[in-house]
Amino acid sequence: MERKKPFYATPQDAEAAFYEALERADLDAMMSVWAEDEEIVCVHPTGPRLSGYAMVHESWRRIFDGGTRMRVQISNAVALQGMLLSIHSVHENITLAGEDKPRPPVVATNVYLRGPLGWRMLVHHASPAPPEAMSDTPKILH
Amino acid sequence: MERKKPFYATPQDAEAAFYEALERADLDAMMSVWAEDEEIVCVHPTGPRLSGYAMVHESWRRIFDGGTRMRVQISNAVALQGMLLSIHSVHENITLAGEDKPRPPVVATNVYLRGPLGWRMLVHHASPAPPEAMSDTPKILH
Repeated sequence: MERKKPFYATPQDAEAAFYEALERADLDAMMSVWAEDEEIVCVHPTGPRLSGYAMVHESWRRIFDGGTRMRVQISNAVALQGMLLSIHSVHENITLAGEDKPRPPVVATNVYLRGPLGWRMLVHHASPAPPEAMSDTPKILH
Repeated sequence: MERKKPFYATPQDAEAAFYEALERADLDAMMSVWAEDEEIVCVHPTGPRLSGYAMVHESWRRIFDGGTRMRVQISNAVALQGMLLSIHSVHENITLAGEDKPRPPVVATNVYLRGPLGWRMLVHHASPAPPEAMSDTPKILH
């Protein structure tokens, strides 16, 4: 039974749904976040550029089938909001299940497009930041 | 003496100027392509997320001072054109000076914003594609 497509009233709602789907490894929820009828683009960390629904869907299926569970906290957000497009640059602070500290951040550029079903993801481009980028996070000085 | 700022009538004009400045290692021309008065974002391949004019300017200064010269050919372009924002996803096929073949492609997400001086770059997010991505380019089959 197909789920009713959710409506995302803001790019922030779509982004929250994206990272929730990633944490829950929920393929249907993940693909509900992406724009339909557009040439969507997805670049996973260290991966090739994937374009079109079929390639993007297949990549998430493989990632979620891989069984790695993670928690993702977003920080360092920079956003530019247009009428129909919204651009977010964020740090993804990923903690893998069984680990107690986040990995060095992944830098993500997320682009959202407003359509008949509200805001949907058009581009997700993620790449690992070098470990030094950890110094962005607050530290206790000795 | 400061050069008069160019006017880019289309995102394609801004993109051509960006890659021309990169090939010529021309810092003034490079920075003319970027939006002013916006929180611009630049991610160089394997690098951290840089935001704001000062950080982006300094990164290009260092890259150009490094003295590496290159030719850049763009392929596999996917574009979404809005009224005020334009999103391009491209493969950068970079040939370093002294080498006769391009390196494996760099995937770039380029975002352009329309302002009083025409289209300007708002985001450049580049990351190396895995070597397999070379198979995107035409091959002779045996």
